[in-house]
Amino acid sequence: MAYVHGYDERENERLGDQAGALVELLHHDTGYPAGSTVLEAGCGVGAQTVTLVANSPGAHFTSIDVSAESLAIARERVTADNVEFVQADLLGFHAEPFDHVFVCFVLEHLADPVAALAKLKTMLRPGGTITVIEGDHGSASFHPETQAAHEAIRCLVALQRDAGGDALIGRRLYPLVSAAGFEHVRVSPRMVYVDGSRPDLIDGFTRKTFTAMVDGVRETALARGLISAERFDEGVRDLYRTAADDGTFNYTFFKAVGTNVVEVAADDLAGQLAGSAASFTDLLGRAGD
Amino acid sequence: MAYVHGYDERENERLGDQAGALVELLHHDTGYPAGSTVLEAGCGVGAQTVTLVANSPGAHFTSIDVSAESLAIARERVTADNVEFVQADLLGFHAEPFDHVFVCFVLEHLADPVAALAKLKTMLRPGGTITVIEGDHGSASFHPETQAAHEAIRCLVALQRDAGGDALIGRRLYPLVSAAGFEHVRVSPRMVYVDGSRPDLIDGFTRKTFTAMVDGVRETALARGLISAERFDEGVRDLYRTAADDGTFNYTFFKAVGTNVVEVAADDLAGQLAGSAASFTDLLGRAGD
Repeated sequence: MAYVHGYDERENERLGDQAGALVELLHHDTGYPAGSTVLEAGCGVGAQTVTLVANSPGAHFTSIDVSAESLAIARERVTADNVEFVQADLLGFHAEPFDHVFVCFVLEHLADPVAALAKLKTMLRPGGTITVIEGDHGSASFHPETQAAHEAIRCLVALQRDAGGDALIGRRLYPLVSAAGFEHVRVSPRMVYVDGSRPDLIDGFTRKTFTAMVDGVRETALARGLISAERFDEGVRDLYRTAADDGTFNYTFFKAVGTNVVEVAADDLAGQLAGSAASFTDLLGRAGD
Repeated sequence: MAYVHGYDERENERLGDQAGALVELLHHDTGYPAGSTVLEAGCGVGAQTVTLVANSPGAHFTSIDVSAESLAIARERVTADNVEFVQADLLGFHAEPFDHVFVCFVLEHLADPVAALAKLKTMLRPGGTITVIEGDHGSASFHPETQAAHEAIRCLVALQRDAGGDALIGRRLYPLVSAAGFEHVRVSPRMVYVDGSRPDLIDGFTRKTFTAMVDGVRETALARGLISAERFDEGVRDLYRTAADDGTFNYTFFKAVGTNVVEVAADDLAGQLAGSAASFTDLLGRAGD
């Protein structure tokens, strides 16, 4: 199980719902200038690509994914002409440096996210930016709160960890992106808060995104012996219960933006200074004339 | 122990720091019109009062608290002339109806927060608003995450529960304020996110507010046998560890605003309609002339 969430149709529907409800929260402040080139690494079924390309109609996107099945869905979903879909593994992908990189809901599945970020850094022009968005299942809090609900959520976290990923990665974006060598790293949390006055989010997030995602690992969690069927079902029922009028649900996504500041090597710097008419040596020499 | 956080000097300093670091996040959107009257219920040492009265210089505040010691500090701290401090218990306090009520970090200590909110509702004029702010210790997530840190936090939660309060009350504001009969209730989460790029919050929130607050119940938690000294100290050390450059810390406050919509009784309504020159009956009667 390399990808916990799976590729079945129900899952694709969930990812579609999720993108719809969360578009504004996650993506409203991501826009790329006309003429710029953007690499979307791990575009999957294109759930984020739809919004990305619509928000930056003048930019050109290259959206890559390792799965041909996902790309087939993405190509059907995204009809804009400023995106090219390419089947490729990140590590084997070669291209001209991009102005910007965008990566969303991908690092959570990787055993070595810093290595992936460092690889993406090599694909950026000097001064280019990376934008990273991840969730954090440990940020889920809700009312009424029950132990069974937390145990069901922990199944998803455990399965993702067994697959080499980290479902709690959101809170780590700042140290991860910094460790990969990016600078001016800024992380902003994006909290989804749901209560009885927000029926769209009750349906689009609490029910059809988060709880459906937990429920989606039921068979695997039972097969692995992580929990009993009764306890898991109780937990999922409790999560659906938070969608009632007097329930609440909270979940936080994290968005990081970093810059690929490429340092000028010491030799180059010396050469540049020597060639500069306004170096200190030059000025001091003149002052002594 | 009626009030978990205690009244000692160190605690007052902590509350002062907290107010300083969080003023913008919690209070920037609370302003009352000139001439309006506002009741601040449970003002304590005036940590919020300073900001409240400064942000609404034309409004008149009545800030009440049951503790004479706290009020003495509040009177020294708040020198503005648009506030009157009154020593009173909420249940025994009588006054002309206020235009607005403000209550911050109070409900967490009460066994029956809905009853308190309902009482506050009786002190509001029709159409007046209530603003409620509370934290939620269950919203704390951090990196590196350790079991010991969570166990130390749970001591604070358990002590507050033993004292009749609820340290996880933030997530319940919507149902609580609604249950008290307020309408148009809107809750907005206010998340404090701290990473290595935010030294002010590392110091002001992670260290001096949250971790200091947990550490503040050390003696009580040990006396009650909730945890061993070694484990508690390990947890607190782990919380301080999240304040390092590669650590992160998250905490969410919740702010609710509700309106005291007083329904006009059916009899009154009939009378008002009968006396109106522009009622449907009247208009239809004329149209038939």
